[in-house]
Amino acid sequence: MNRKGLEILMRSRIRSAAEAGKLPVNFHWKELEKKQRSDHCEPFGMAGDEDAAASECSESKAKRVRDFMHEAIHMKKKEIVDATLGEFLQGYISLAGDNRHELLVTLARDYSVNRNQVRELIQQYLGLEISEGMLEHQSEVDEGGILSAVYRTERNLRQALKPLYEILFERLNTYPGGLKFLSILRADLLNLIEEVNLPSLRALDSYLKEKLVTWLSPAVLELHRITWDDSASLLEKIVAYEAVHPINNLQDLKRRLGVGRRCFGYLHPAIPCEPLIFIEVALLKDVAHTIQEVLWDEPPILENDATCALFYSISSTQPGLSGINLGKFLIKRVIELVRRDMPCVLTFATLSPIPGYIQWLLSKLASQLKLAELDSEDKRVSSEDMTARTFRENLLYPEEEQEILASCAENPTGNSAVEVMLCLLRSRNPEWVKSDRLLAALQAPLMRLCSRYLVREKKRGKALDAVANFHLQNGAMIHRLNWMADRSEKGFHQSGGIMVNYLYRPGEIEENAQLYFNSGHIQASPDIQRYLELDTHSRI
Amino acid sequence: MNRKGLEILMRSRIRSAAEAGKLPVNFHWKELEKKQRSDHCEPFGMAGDEDAAASECSESKAKRVRDFMHEAIHMKKKEIVDATLGEFLQGYISLAGDNRHELLVTLARDYSVNRNQVRELIQQYLGLEISEGMLEHQSEVDEGGILSAVYRTERNLRQALKPLYEILFERLNTYPGGLKFLSILRADLLNLIEEVNLPSLRALDSYLKEKLVTWLSPAVLELHRITWDDSASLLEKIVAYEAVHPINNLQDLKRRLGVGRRCFGYLHPAIPCEPLIFIEVALLKDVAHTIQEVLWDEPPILENDATCALFYSISSTQPGLSGINLGKFLIKRVIELVRRDMPCVLTFATLSPIPGYIQWLLSKLASQLKLAELDSEDKRVSSEDMTARTFRENLLYPEEEQEILASCAENPTGNSAVEVMLCLLRSRNPEWVKSDRLLAALQAPLMRLCSRYLVREKKRGKALDAVANFHLQNGAMIHRLNWMADRSEKGFHQSGGIMVNYLYRPGEIEENAQLYFNSGHIQASPDIQRYLELDTHSRI
Repeated sequence: MNRKGLEILMRSRIRSAAEAGKLPVNFHWKELEKKQRSDHCEPFGMAGDEDAAASECSESKAKRVRDFMHEAIHMKKKEIVDATLGEFLQGYISLAGDNRHELLVTLARDYSVNRNQVRELIQQYLGLEISEGMLEHQSEVDEGGILSAVYRTERNLRQALKPLYEILFERLNTYPGGLKFLSILRADLLNLIEEVNLPSLRALDSYLKEKLVTWLSPAVLELHRITWDDSASLLEKIVAYEAVHPINNLQDLKRRLGVGRRCFGYLHPAIPCEPLIFIEVALLKDVAHTIQEVLWDEPPILENDATCALFYSISSTQPGLSGINLGKFLIKRVIELVRRDMPCVLTFATLSPIPGYIQWLLSKLASQLKLAELDSEDKRVSSEDMTARTFRENLLYPEEEQEILASCAENPTGNSAVEVMLCLLRSRNPEWVKSDRLLAALQAPLMRLCSRYLVREKKRGKALDAVANFHLQNGAMIHRLNWMADRSEKGFHQSGGIMVNYLYRPGEIEENAQLYFNSGHIQASPDIQRYLELDTHSRI
Repeated sequence: MNRKGLEILMRSRIRSAAEAGKLPVNFHWKELEKKQRSDHCEPFGMAGDEDAAASECSESKAKRVRDFMHEAIHMKKKEIVDATLGEFLQGYISLAGDNRHELLVTLARDYSVNRNQVRELIQQYLGLEISEGMLEHQSEVDEGGILSAVYRTERNLRQALKPLYEILFERLNTYPGGLKFLSILRADLLNLIEEVNLPSLRALDSYLKEKLVTWLSPAVLELHRITWDDSASLLEKIVAYEAVHPINNLQDLKRRLGVGRRCFGYLHPAIPCEPLIFIEVALLKDVAHTIQEVLWDEPPILENDATCALFYSISSTQPGLSGINLGKFLIKRVIELVRRDMPCVLTFATLSPIPGYIQWLLSKLASQLKLAELDSEDKRVSSEDMTARTFRENLLYPEEEQEILASCAENPTGNSAVEVMLCLLRSRNPEWVKSDRLLAALQAPLMRLCSRYLVREKKRGKALDAVANFHLQNGAMIHRLNWMADRSEKGFHQSGGIMVNYLYRPGEIEENAQLYFNSGHIQASPDIQRYLELDTHSRI
């Protein structure tokens, strides 16, 4: 990186992970947007009352953008669409959120399938007299051209069933900057769907997602090793989008790209200088227990001594590509590459957060507390209570309960161990992490229940935890739970400081993925199995 | 290029353009093929009679490949398809032509659209009671879920209308080497269709072509400047595929990549080291009149003195991508790039062959001769003859006729000038090019008729000449005809040595393309217009 690049990076604001997760951060686009919003009003603006002018401006601008969209779809194949596409693209970016949303609703509703044409073609198709034999024993002579008609009508029907917005997407895809624009458009669309869940918007989203999957085929993505020699504009994106362990300063970034570390990104030829997803890797002697070792402990080992490649962070940069699993291919290709370049590295593991654990545990504790209250306060036994009672379980072993109550005897926060735990975990400033005794008391139940959360809690047959589901569907297994592995505020808040190692065993990846896909089966190490057994006993 | 690469290149056979045009030349693939054919027989071979074993081998091998194909299509989404795809791909390459053809027929016929499913979904779709108002005024409440059902059924029907082989194509596209394989498969398919033109094969081809167009979107193609520093494996491809002006030796190649010259290729990330198409450019002071100046005249001018970029050769390397116009995007991007890097270059022109001219002229001369004979030999005037007579025209001016007859008076090859011309142009060893007098006599009519061929001879509203149609649809205009511009055997054979300059005027490209697309209008320079006027007079 040259001096100028360095300066830019040093002045650039370091975004928090939470922000980076939400926003389609792209400085170039952001600037364009700002410019558009100020510049482009003018030609539509009116003299006189400024507010009225601004409102008029916004309305007529929205209309103009809509007109460009219409043109971009309806122009004949070889006409000059590029200029129109450019106008539409710039116009859209200059629109405020509400106007974008309106436009998306219009696109979804008015540029969908041509249903009259579909019905006409269906009638044609049903009118074709095809016999089975005709299709099975095609002779070289197609008598009456009936076979040709079948294939032709099928093709036409397939074509007619494509929504009109397909044309806009296809044209944008070949237009410079168009692919990036489509990812912004989809991010807007996903936000809109959260507000108004219309069938037409869902159909638009599903169609656009399908197209994006095709265009982002791993066959066209370039695996790029990101180093300190890359441009500031690229490194800036790494800082901005790192969603797992925020990069705090330049030294931190440099270290993640230096000796004993690797960072790989997937680049699409049409979106240069902006990895769609990137992964950070530490080369270690053993599978790390804590993120502390990886991020801050000095110095890194000699690369030749490494036997383990630890994936400690994976972040995607495009909210508009949500639901498109590029990480799977990225991890596979990085494993291949490291195996080829460093044959001594035999272990491929992650050190991963468990983002949903504490939230799940809190609701679990709360509902048990409620059931317990029902039981004790009101002795009338209604049929409802009976049902409720069947859901009661002992989340804690008696000795765990005693330990917890004893460890905060001087400053009790509840009547029962469950209440104490609920209260401790719920507090914004987790005091318990500063008390060795409380930590000791909570370790056993938190680790045990975490194994249950990861392996047994499912949603539609898949692991409830999003990160777990990601690695399991990629073919990893659950290897080890690590106590006090992430002592950051976020770490305590999400998972009580616990982190998990997922293990990618090159020979078993496909088989694991298949088992998980077919039956939801989760591969877990003997360590994890022991926790699960303890958990089963606690419930009896 | 390093010493080893140079050695490889020097020993590699220099292929003729004709060969390169026909064959899917790829050394890596060719080797694999050879290896497969010898190795892979073994596991299926039988002891005893070698011929029987060979035949058995070929049959059972074909069956195995078919089984792999079936598996590759029918495996569940996340199962281990990669191994199967690899087996299918290697197996297919090892098959002989006939077996490949059989397999393609099977693929086209047995893995097409699931027609039962389509009919079922059509019935479902027709059963949905949609009112117009419902679709136009979608409220946020979708009563009875009818709108959701419409979008869902349309999506399912669209999905069902996709042939089963779509799955194979999609899977191959993400498999290493799969895209290149699909281009080989399509080349085989195109050959097969020339033999047996089945509707199912045409449908397969049209579907595969559509997929290839998507995957080869210009958005993912990398414009690469090819230089002497590129790898031998890449330069070898340039030598092998150069289809316009064969590269005769290393010096020739080096010159085309050196000072005053440019060579650009389009690379796809999934097919590294093999440009899909490449273009050769000479930087000149003026638009060149002859290929001699470009290829052999020494020395090249200083690049800073150049004002014209001359495209003198464009070759595609993949017969399987036939009909997919990558050249258009390549030319546009090269123009952009040269304009940016060399602002003094203001003229963008080609020096192009006219591959179909002499063939067209010969048939024209022959039919005129026939009509003339009918006229003179048989004086009975049937209605057929009357019709024939309306097609008679004077291809030559009287003075041209005299000139031609006079210039070969000593050694006449026919009774009329038309017959003489026919005979001269038809001969394998064109003697006329060695006689200054014959050359002088033929120049006027050959140039005049060439303008007619290029501008006025159309097929379905487009220029009959393939190269002309290519440049015109890209937005070029016809600038100048050049006499004795290509004195190679091929040059005389194709176009009587005439070459044409097409001109790409950056500001007019889109407009020209649009005019040509809409009405078949061909932009031609005043020079060309004069020839056309002369030609119109000759016919009166």
